[in-house]
Amino acid sequence: MSHPLFGPEIKLMLDERNSAGLREFCEQLHPATVAEALDDDFTPEQIWEVISSAKIRTQASVFEYLPPALQVQMAEKARPQVGQLLTQMSHDDRVDLLRRLPPRVTEAIMRLVDEADRQDIARLFQYGENTVGALMTTDYAWLPGTLTAAEAIDQLRQQAPDRETIYYIYVLDDPQRRPDGSPAPRRLLGVVSLRDLILAPRHALIRELMETDLVTLRHDEDAGAVPQLFARYDFIAAPVVDEQFGLLGIVTHDDVLDVVTREATEDLQRQGAVGPITGDYLEASFWQVWKSRVFWLCVLFFLQMFTINVMARYEGKLEPKSDERAAQADLKTATTSLAFMVVFIPLCLSVGGNAGSQASTLVTRALALEQVKVSDWFRVFLRELLMGVSLAATLGTLAIARSYFLTPDSVLAKVPDGAVWNLVWVVAFAVMGICLTGAVIGAMLPIVIKWWGGDPALMSSPFIATLSDVLGIIIFFNVVALFF
Amino acid sequence: MSHPLFGPEIKLMLDERNSAGLREFCEQLHPATVAEALDDDFTPEQIWEVISSAKIRTQASVFEYLPPALQVQMAEKARPQVGQLLTQMSHDDRVDLLRRLPPRVTEAIMRLVDEADRQDIARLFQYGENTVGALMTTDYAWLPGTLTAAEAIDQLRQQAPDRETIYYIYVLDDPQRRPDGSPAPRRLLGVVSLRDLILAPRHALIRELMETDLVTLRHDEDAGAVPQLFARYDFIAAPVVDEQFGLLGIVTHDDVLDVVTREATEDLQRQGAVGPITGDYLEASFWQVWKSRVFWLCVLFFLQMFTINVMARYEGKLEPKSDERAAQADLKTATTSLAFMVVFIPLCLSVGGNAGSQASTLVTRALALEQVKVSDWFRVFLRELLMGVSLAATLGTLAIARSYFLTPDSVLAKVPDGAVWNLVWVVAFAVMGICLTGAVIGAMLPIVIKWWGGDPALMSSPFIATLSDVLGIIIFFNVVALFF
Repeated sequence: MSHPLFGPEIKLMLDERNSAGLREFCEQLHPATVAEALDDDFTPEQIWEVISSAKIRTQASVFEYLPPALQVQMAEKARPQVGQLLTQMSHDDRVDLLRRLPPRVTEAIMRLVDEADRQDIARLFQYGENTVGALMTTDYAWLPGTLTAAEAIDQLRQQAPDRETIYYIYVLDDPQRRPDGSPAPRRLLGVVSLRDLILAPRHALIRELMETDLVTLRHDEDAGAVPQLFARYDFIAAPVVDEQFGLLGIVTHDDVLDVVTREATEDLQRQGAVGPITGDYLEASFWQVWKSRVFWLCVLFFLQMFTINVMARYEGKLEPKSDERAAQADLKTATTSLAFMVVFIPLCLSVGGNAGSQASTLVTRALALEQVKVSDWFRVFLRELLMGVSLAATLGTLAIARSYFLTPDSVLAKVPDGAVWNLVWVVAFAVMGICLTGAVIGAMLPIVIKWWGGDPALMSSPFIATLSDVLGIIIFFNVVALFF
Repeated sequence: MSHPLFGPEIKLMLDERNSAGLREFCEQLHPATVAEALDDDFTPEQIWEVISSAKIRTQASVFEYLPPALQVQMAEKARPQVGQLLTQMSHDDRVDLLRRLPPRVTEAIMRLVDEADRQDIARLFQYGENTVGALMTTDYAWLPGTLTAAEAIDQLRQQAPDRETIYYIYVLDDPQRRPDGSPAPRRLLGVVSLRDLILAPRHALIRELMETDLVTLRHDEDAGAVPQLFARYDFIAAPVVDEQFGLLGIVTHDDVLDVVTREATEDLQRQGAVGPITGDYLEASFWQVWKSRVFWLCVLFFLQMFTINVMARYEGKLEPKSDERAAQADLKTATTSLAFMVVFIPLCLSVGGNAGSQASTLVTRALALEQVKVSDWFRVFLRELLMGVSLAATLGTLAIARSYFLTPDSVLAKVPDGAVWNLVWVVAFAVMGICLTGAVIGAMLPIVIKWWGGDPALMSSPFIATLSDVLGIIIFFNVVALFF
């Protein structure tokens, strides 16, 4: 698993314009290794220079292994080169790339691609995100059922270089036409594995070798169903068909792993009350992250408001009994008792727990997926500070509205004369302070734990909520002291 | 993806002792489909009867696809049959099975297995859980580097039926010996894919075709590292080596999917403050689940206790000022004020949020993995009721200790004479009531949401915490009213 650090060597070769050395570097190593070596330390221009020394097929392989964001940068820099690479890339990966590019760049590149490829790209482009169709590739191996095993292997020799996998070979029917006369996808009759083909007698017919009890996916199914199917059947690939059992493409095992990781991230985010965020934590747009968080924070804030009413109903019972209170009122002591403020404590504390859960969920997952490193702590800190401020402003506004218009009468009765706005400001500033603190602590603690060599996943949502409760109480009472 | 329901048909064939029909059912369908059809509706004895009509290789394949718990039941029922199946099963799957069986059953079965298989099993048995070694299989395809491509394909024809995958062929060195003369694993020289072999000229030497820039796993590495490697390189299988680069086995893509799912479950559980639970939610032993939950609940409870001190420090400020309090004391009103009880509110509420997060995390994940169905709601309810009671008892004891010995003096000063035990009982019963309510609600809400056709993942930890806050306040004040 360990590879020497290639960075300095590549830099030297670039300086010396040693294209023979660069070609060897690209051709000898696994394309994923080459991509990893180039990923962090080089500019898009430099990466183009390094890989352009290699064969076009190698270039495409290395390019596919680069992170999506870098692919986009490189494509914007050098459209003609990308146009060339597209013909060699996996059919699903190239569509993924084009989806990420700005429409005008995609258009410009598409003009450089030949007719057949353009049609194939357009076909895959039409499938909705998160469907099986968007996951599949069209570069599968296929044969008619009338060949013998030996003929089939000969045919595969021709097809193999262009196919994503040749380990499953799909057996297709004669060409079909739709009622309107346009060509329809060929019907899927069966599948034969390369393993079976190798084991079979040379003259056995594919038609007789093939497996006809087929497990297929539908192009419009949710991509989330795919991992379960692969886990159950231990597939390397699965065919995707349309309503007429016409073969549209295949989904391969490597895409499934990506789906599983994406689904796990979404599950974790949902459990931490964050709407799904596509892409890396640090690369996702600020407003996308804000939106995915503010919605749940507000929903939870509204629900939590019931605690005010419930507290207000019961809080009176903790007070001295009414006849004695009358006596107190005579003494004018009631005006200085701020005990009514406790009804707002559960609401204010919960904000910290929720904002903290969100932040710790996002940062812990980003650390696990290596989207964020410990050395990024300051960027994360700044981001969560800003995020905390914007979330706090939203919740603060809600808190003002809620505490001004809807504070229960039993509580209002106890507020000292003319101090209603003090109450409103206390709730608003406490909510804002606690929200900001929660977000920053939730984001920074996982990084601190990782830096100490621990497991950031220990910063569970309840743990963050507990910590932020302690801080929340301090903030709350200090804000009370400030305004009363 | 959809298959007709085979259940009634199989039952009929069993009644009629129609072994030809049963054989056809087993041989014609995908073994995973057969296993699925048999899984829910049949007893271990019936399943043996169904599959024993098929070829021994088919029996082994179907058996491998049955859920682990059922495999164990079947193995305990029919040791000789299992002994036979073991020789045909994947080398990693059979070790997984033997690990799960009681030691005496494992021993009895091992006596029925021939020498070579027994040695192979013993070798794999030695690797620690969650290591790469425990994940790997030893039935890989290998060749010496001196063969030509055509010879290699001929050789593979011999090996293929027994190998987990023949799509990567490992090229090994001559036999090695350790310094003490015992045989050591053959050194890994390279790897060639079946695809390359098919594409290569017939007379090309394997040695020259093979890839030598190898990405390998070490047998003692953590299994958690495997998915990342597979995701990066899009492997179907990866070789596992020892310190001397001797090939020990391979890890295949299907095992990786299992690891990813297991890791995602663990991440979710950790985020919900539950220690990792192996196996299904309903099948895991009560005490295992209890242990994995009570630890974190107690840790969080201890941390949360700081809120008492912080609240006690500030709570005085909410009270009437001291000179007026003196006046109150004269009026003997202080004895009826229970405002000091609010210092315990954050602690009590947090218990509900934590217990609820744990329960909702476990049940939501179990629903997603289909370990729990909506129809299991009563079993889940009973289990969480019992679990809630045992967790509540533990926390209640802690609460008694904490509130009796460690209540801050400033709070004790306000407790009415002789009412210290009332305070202790209030805290203990409130904690217990809230813990139980949290656990039950956390477990049942995801099921209710699923029953309504919604997504149970919406029951995030913060959501459950919010709901349980509202209920927690009601419980708290009612317990206060009960004891004062």
